[in-house]
Amino acid sequence: MDRVDLNSDLGESFGAYVMGNDEDMLKIISSANIACGFHAGDPLVMHKTLTLAKENGVGVGAHPSFIDLWGFGRRPIHGEKPEDIEKILIYQVGAIQGMARSVGVEVTHFKTHGSLGNIAAVDADLAMACARAVKTIDPDMLFIVMPGNELEKAGEKMGLRCAREIFADRAYDDDGNLVSRKLEGAVIHDPEVAVPRVIRMVEEQALTSVSGKKIPVAIDTICVHGDNPAAVAMAKRIRDSLTEAGIAIRPMAETLK
Amino acid sequence: MDRVDLNSDLGESFGAYVMGNDEDMLKIISSANIACGFHAGDPLVMHKTLTLAKENGVGVGAHPSFIDLWGFGRRPIHGEKPEDIEKILIYQVGAIQGMARSVGVEVTHFKTHGSLGNIAAVDADLAMACARAVKTIDPDMLFIVMPGNELEKAGEKMGLRCAREIFADRAYDDDGNLVSRKLEGAVIHDPEVAVPRVIRMVEEQALTSVSGKKIPVAIDTICVHGDNPAAVAMAKRIRDSLTEAGIAIRPMAETLK
Amino acid sequence: MDRVDLNSDLGESFGAYVMGNDEDMLKIISSANIACGFHAGDPLVMHKTLTLAKENGVGVGAHPSFIDLWGFGRRPIHGEKPEDIEKILIYQVGAIQGMARSVGVEVTHFKTHGSLGNIAAVDADLAMACARAVKTIDPDMLFIVMPGNELEKAGEKMGLRCAREIFADRAYDDDGNLVSRKLEGAVIHDPEVAVPRVIRMVEEQALTSVSGKKIPVAIDTICVHGDNPAAVAMAKRIRDSLTEAGIAIRPMAETLK
Amino acid sequence: MDRVDLNSDLGESFGAYVMGNDEDMLKIISSANIACGFHAGDPLVMHKTLTLAKENGVGVGAHPSFIDLWGFGRRPIHGEKPEDIEKILIYQVGAIQGMARSVGVEVTHFKTHGSLGNIAAVDADLAMACARAVKTIDPDMLFIVMPGNELEKAGEKMGLRCAREIFADRAYDDDGNLVSRKLEGAVIHDPEVAVPRVIRMVEEQALTSVSGKKIPVAIDTICVHGDNPAAVAMAKRIRDSLTEAGIAIRPMAETLK
Repeated sequence: MDRVDLNSDLGESFGAYVMGNDEDMLKIISSANIACGFHAGDPLVMHKTLTLAKENGVGVGAHPSFIDLWGFGRRPIHGEKPEDIEKILIYQVGAIQGMARSVGVEVTHFKTHGSLGNIAAVDADLAMACARAVKTIDPDMLFIVMPGNELEKAGEKMGLRCAREIFADRAYDDDGNLVSRKLEGAVIHDPEVAVPRVIRMVEEQALTSVSGKKIPVAIDTICVHGDNPAAVAMAKRIRDSLTEAGIAIRPMAETLK
Repeated sequence: MDRVDLNSDLGESFGAYVMGNDEDMLKIISSANIACGFHAGDPLVMHKTLTLAKENGVGVGAHPSFIDLWGFGRRPIHGEKPEDIEKILIYQVGAIQGMARSVGVEVTHFKTHGSLGNIAAVDADLAMACARAVKTIDPDMLFIVMPGNELEKAGEKMGLRCAREIFADRAYDDDGNLVSRKLEGAVIHDPEVAVPRVIRMVEEQALTSVSGKKIPVAIDTICVHGDNPAAVAMAKRIRDSLTEAGIAIRPMAETLK
Repeated sequence: MDRVDLNSDLGESFGAYVMGNDEDMLKIISSANIACGFHAGDPLVMHKTLTLAKENGVGVGAHPSFIDLWGFGRRPIHGEKPEDIEKILIYQVGAIQGMARSVGVEVTHFKTHGSLGNIAAVDADLAMACARAVKTIDPDMLFIVMPGNELEKAGEKMGLRCAREIFADRAYDDDGNLVSRKLEGAVIHDPEVAVPRVIRMVEEQALTSVSGKKIPVAIDTICVHGDNPAAVAMAKRIRDSLTEAGIAIRPMAETLK
Repeated sequence: MDRVDLNSDLGESFGAYVMGNDEDMLKIISSANIACGFHAGDPLVMHKTLTLAKENGVGVGAHPSFIDLWGFGRRPIHGEKPEDIEKILIYQVGAIQGMARSVGVEVTHFKTHGSLGNIAAVDADLAMACARAVKTIDPDMLFIVMPGNELEKAGEKMGLRCAREIFADRAYDDDGNLVSRKLEGAVIHDPEVAVPRVIRMVEEQALTSVSGKKIPVAIDTICVHGDNPAAVAMAKRIRDSLTEAGIAIRPMAETLK
């Protein structure tokens, strides 16, 4: 394993509201998941983020969500019909594709945001709606999944090119699932712990669970955050440490060719 | 002149709210201007409207607006930067293009909605922003304009294929402009007056002003409304009368080939 | 039992969108549950509805919901903190109180809308958030509940004046709960069945379950709908039949004095 | 003149979005203009801001706007009927009054936000709509105006208690109007210039125009900003300098008793 992708959620500002540290993060990551206007982002923010991603050679992906601006796409909205969610996703991906065309870049991946992703990870019908949306709009688009979850199964069933993702700052249980945020230790804030752990997981192509168990998985991309200066600093250290370990940071669209 | 297009604004429902008589109108018109979610419409409504348009052989166009759901895009919002409006339009057109692809139809025209259209008709900078958005996203897309207004000038300057539009139910002054809605007689409600007037204008390829003056213009498409049963009935009569007069109703994308 | 209240959800229009038959319903019902702008309604709609209610001698209540305009407050949004919902409710009730003051009427009752009501009916913490909101903003406000549900328990715990409600067109199971809408027969569309059943339930002060079981409950108010002409007609028949049976229709604020 | 009020716009966060430095500003100012949910703010943000204002002994006011979340109330929306705006304002003030009651504070002033304020300053009909809204909802509420503008005239015509406001960081022309932001020098960024100028204006109860002309006005409150650290620092210096000059900082509701 000599290369990996670093992805992060960007373009989350809205109107007069600024969120995140996009300019800093674009110097660190290789793939940007860009909000499409339903939980965050707007046409101006999307245009700016796409333009900056292009300038920094960062790959771009759609980061769609439920219709939930006030809740930032984090409110768990159950009970929507999968075929409705499919249309809601197609709208958002179409919008960012149009905007990307105007900037001269291509939207090469798709990653579910917030509650949509959390629910689709365990709900096979919703996961299939996500996979169908991508299949419909661009069957070559990379589909970001967590190894073993319903999104991965749906992506494989639809014949999509799946990009397996791990989280730099989240603990895994012995089944390879994320430890619930409600439990202590679910989020790893200490870079002294998180950084070497990430390097090891990439080198070994295996998750390391909280109990120390190794769970072999393909790792195509690592999710990092940029919500605050500490997160940006940790992302930077992960990048630097990977580079020092001889692992190149490349957009997943290149990595998975 | 043996053919003309009939266009109408469709897909204006939103969530639980229903607006218009889309199913009836789709049996009358040949081109549908479909709301893109910023003043009306949502992914579900757009999908349904596009599907019905396809089934009825009706051409589809983007009908974007300012960001103004509560005001239904009718509030006059001045002072936004043209380059911002351009991005707002690209987003909306991209979204409907994505949705149209999923349905298997092509978005072949663009018509500004409400206040955006009213302001762009007289504001050269805003008109150019509209024309640039279309040029960027699909230079073959038809650009609906009123003969003589700033949108027509902008469309020509950008080398777009312009579709000249008249209104079935609006009075014109001697300069070929619409009589202000604030003046009496601006809107023609009586089908006995409106219908023969429309036929005559198409046959003569000339506007008839309130004073009786003939103003020669190319007429590619006629805007009809479907807001209420009387409007739908008038649209039906216009269609029937045109057909009886030997003028075929065809989508503007065919008419302007 | 010689009097009862008829309540219905009104003021659900929004901007250019019209919903319901408020003017007709205000001649039938005695209490209006008025949307407060979060799932439906806006300041103009609220003002108009309050004014019409006043003219028709109809009592007015707040009908707040989750923050969910697109979903019309019907999307089941789980996981919001009760203390957050409490604030969201206080905002909405405050807004309608201000508007009611400007019209010269008083907001005398509170009824949860859509998913908020559905979830609060079975979730004690959310039900308590609703009751606390009412207690905080006006401890004399009537709190509409279904006999036996968590809202009733919360209202009683907070010392609120509860108004017990039955539904004119919904079937009940032997435990006094509404039959799930997913099951056949959950909604009674036939006025020949629904109307006499409602009269009987009011006269007997007991629910009649699908199996014919009688469940004694206090009935202060009957919920009727006005979404379409058939619903309006059924509401009218219920009113007329109650009157003929010697049961007066009075606003719940009078009934419960 | 031994006392003056310092006011600032607060509570402008929304959902996941944070704006401003409210906690810092509440230690500096004596009156907070709190967003009411139409251009910024939401029930949770309002509750938190009101609670913090109470803890800091800061007076609270409603800061309503046009319906324009995306544009942060800054888009110039012309052509809305004054009677509609009046209702839109009553809704917002009612909402914050309800929330304030739940926190145990009183809403004692009213200040128009953004474009609403800019347009009402020169449009007598819109200014009267603002004054009528306040008169209707609480005739004792203080009405913030700029000396000489249409809001002041409307407030006086309606018999409201007007609080005259100057801006700490804006230049005035010889007629006492703000220099347009489009002109150089309209905004004074240098605290070495702004701070002594503010003290002088308060001591002299006169505006100092760009040409040096003194224009006598009553000054009840000074508007300061907290958008960024430099603004917060300038606000702090203004407070400290006023105090050193023997001018006490007091909520306008006390000052104007």
